[in-house]
Amino acid sequence: MRVVSGMRPTGKLHLGHFIGVLKNWKELQEKYDCFFFVADWHALTTKFDEKIDLRQNSVELVKEWIASGIDPEKTTLFIQSEIKEHAELYLIFNMITPVSWLERNPTYKDAMQQEEYKKKNNAGFLTYPVLQTADIVLYDADLVPIGEDQKPHLELARDIVNRFHYLYKTEIFKEPQEMLTEVPRLPGLDGRKMSKSFNNAIYLDETPEEIWAKVRMAKTDPARIKKTDPGHPEVCIVFEYHKAFSSPDEVAEIESACRAGTIGCVECKKRCATNIEKVVAPIREKKAQLKNDEILDIINNSNKKARELAKEKMNQVNRVIF
Amino acid sequence: MRVVSGMRPTGKLHLGHFIGVLKNWKELQEKYDCFFFVADWHALTTKFDEKIDLRQNSVELVKEWIASGIDPEKTTLFIQSEIKEHAELYLIFNMITPVSWLERNPTYKDAMQQEEYKKKNNAGFLTYPVLQTADIVLYDADLVPIGEDQKPHLELARDIVNRFHYLYKTEIFKEPQEMLTEVPRLPGLDGRKMSKSFNNAIYLDETPEEIWAKVRMAKTDPARIKKTDPGHPEVCIVFEYHKAFSSPDEVAEIESACRAGTIGCVECKKRCATNIEKVVAPIREKKAQLKNDEILDIINNSNKKARELAKEKMNQVNRVIF
Ligand code: SF4
Ligand code: SF4
Repeated sequence: MRVVSGMRPTGKLHLGHFIGVLKNWKELQEKYDCFFFVADWHALTTKFDEKIDLRQNSVELVKEWIASGIDPEKTTLFIQSEIKEHAELYLIFNMITPVSWLERNPTYKDAMQQEEYKKKNNAGFLTYPVLQTADIVLYDADLVPIGEDQKPHLELARDIVNRFHYLYKTEIFKEPQEMLTEVPRLPGLDGRKMSKSFNNAIYLDETPEEIWAKVRMAKTDPARIKKTDPGHPEVCIVFEYHKAFSSPDEVAEIESACRAGTIGCVECKKRCATNIEKVVAPIREKKAQLKNDEILDIINNSNKKARELAKEKMNQVNRVIF
Repeated sequence: MRVVSGMRPTGKLHLGHFIGVLKNWKELQEKYDCFFFVADWHALTTKFDEKIDLRQNSVELVKEWIASGIDPEKTTLFIQSEIKEHAELYLIFNMITPVSWLERNPTYKDAMQQEEYKKKNNAGFLTYPVLQTADIVLYDADLVPIGEDQKPHLELARDIVNRFHYLYKTEIFKEPQEMLTEVPRLPGLDGRKMSKSFNNAIYLDETPEEIWAKVRMAKTDPARIKKTDPGHPEVCIVFEYHKAFSSPDEVAEIESACRAGTIGCVECKKRCATNIEKVVAPIREKKAQLKNDEILDIINNSNKKARELAKEKMNQVNRVIF
């Protein structure tokens, strides 16, 4: 069974990516033939006007994947824009995809309600699910790990596949199925969405000092002034991090200590930082060891493998339509 | 100076194509570095659901171009879908092209008024001018021969180029300029638009007998019953054909004879058919001589040349955006 999934190279990875995506990818790679790709063309749908070095980011991203435990021996880690067949199939799928299908895509409709996206309403933004469809079916993906909010995209992918099959009386594509994964959303340390611009995220290559400096500033239960004030872990961001990085036993212990007012927030944060560091340390160290050349070799090999499959699929497509 | 122009491979060429396009291309090839391409991906924008053998049509089309006097030594005759860079640049241009620009394209707006096109309102149809822009600027075209109705497309092409230059602070593309060509529109023999389905067109490989059979049935001035009735050449389709295929002297002679009622319509048609045959004969004969392998060789060589230029341009593009 093949799994295909992509990530946009829009910057350094933080704990939110680790908890939300990479932990899942690590499990998937043990069970499936995984194709994980750097979605650099997709990054252009919204970031086309930002000065980001996508090429450099892409290599960095694959390096961080590998440092985080994605195994290049088990998976195929390629760069979308290096496989031109994605663009070719995207073009062809555009020819058969009604504009109305794209306009009623809930993600698109939502975006059009927001000024920020409205002004980025480019053809690439509108047709982004078409490119996504190409990304997936080019490799005969059986399963696509997605969150609940991406369900309409996968439905659209199946609709496009079915329309192609119907129009050209063929069955060359696999209908991709969703693998609904509960994506645990780790909030930023200030309680807002994790974001570089808020400086509320811990990155996968930060030192213990940097981690502590950030956790120290994290938002806790505002009702706790003195150590003996009974706390409410359910409103505390630090507790969210404990749940993500500390053992169940420790989480239980902290919860009751907080409620009883027997643990101070500083001590609680220290323990949290220590547990985060336990996860980050091996990633940071592995990342430091990985050489760019090594990563480029891995990418090139994967690209080659992906390209062969993509070319074979496009031969089938072109035999059907031309 | 480079000229780029394309034609869709939607079927055999008829006299309308010869008069409307090929005569112009023949002149252009003497003065410019011409790239003429088979727009097979474009054909999918409206013909995606028709059973036409685009691959076979493409080879046939190039054969008919050459038979009509397009010189493969002087021009580059390539197949759009063989140069994947068109799809790649199309994808990238989509990322920066506002949907609103495409929606206010007059051709698109007109089409949306027609049921036939409305139901084909696919993403590829909407973004067709984006692909067209890629087709042109990929080869640093200086000039694009277009009719008045295509002016908005070329303006859009320049807008996309300028937006790209502005966003990425670069000037890698040439801004294509229009070469407005008066496209003489030859009507079908029944006065309607020339079309295969109306059986009102003369094809470039038809025999004298076939030509005569069709001209014989052409619509003339309905006011003429007897040979001596004074005619009105301005309402006569045959006279349109005389203007396109007979010498100015002969046209003048026929005009006055018709008005004076001294020439019969049958005789007039015979002379018309003879003059058409004079144009068609060398095309038909050359076409019969041309071997498919020969055409494939020409196409392959041209594709190679086009591909090299396109790859070089895409390297520039990718250095800028990634
Ligand atoms: S003790 Fe820990 S869980 Fe309780 S409020 Fe302080 S930081 Fe949050
Ligand atoms: S004589 Fe010729 S030009 Fe005049 S009406 Fe007949 S066909 Fe037409």
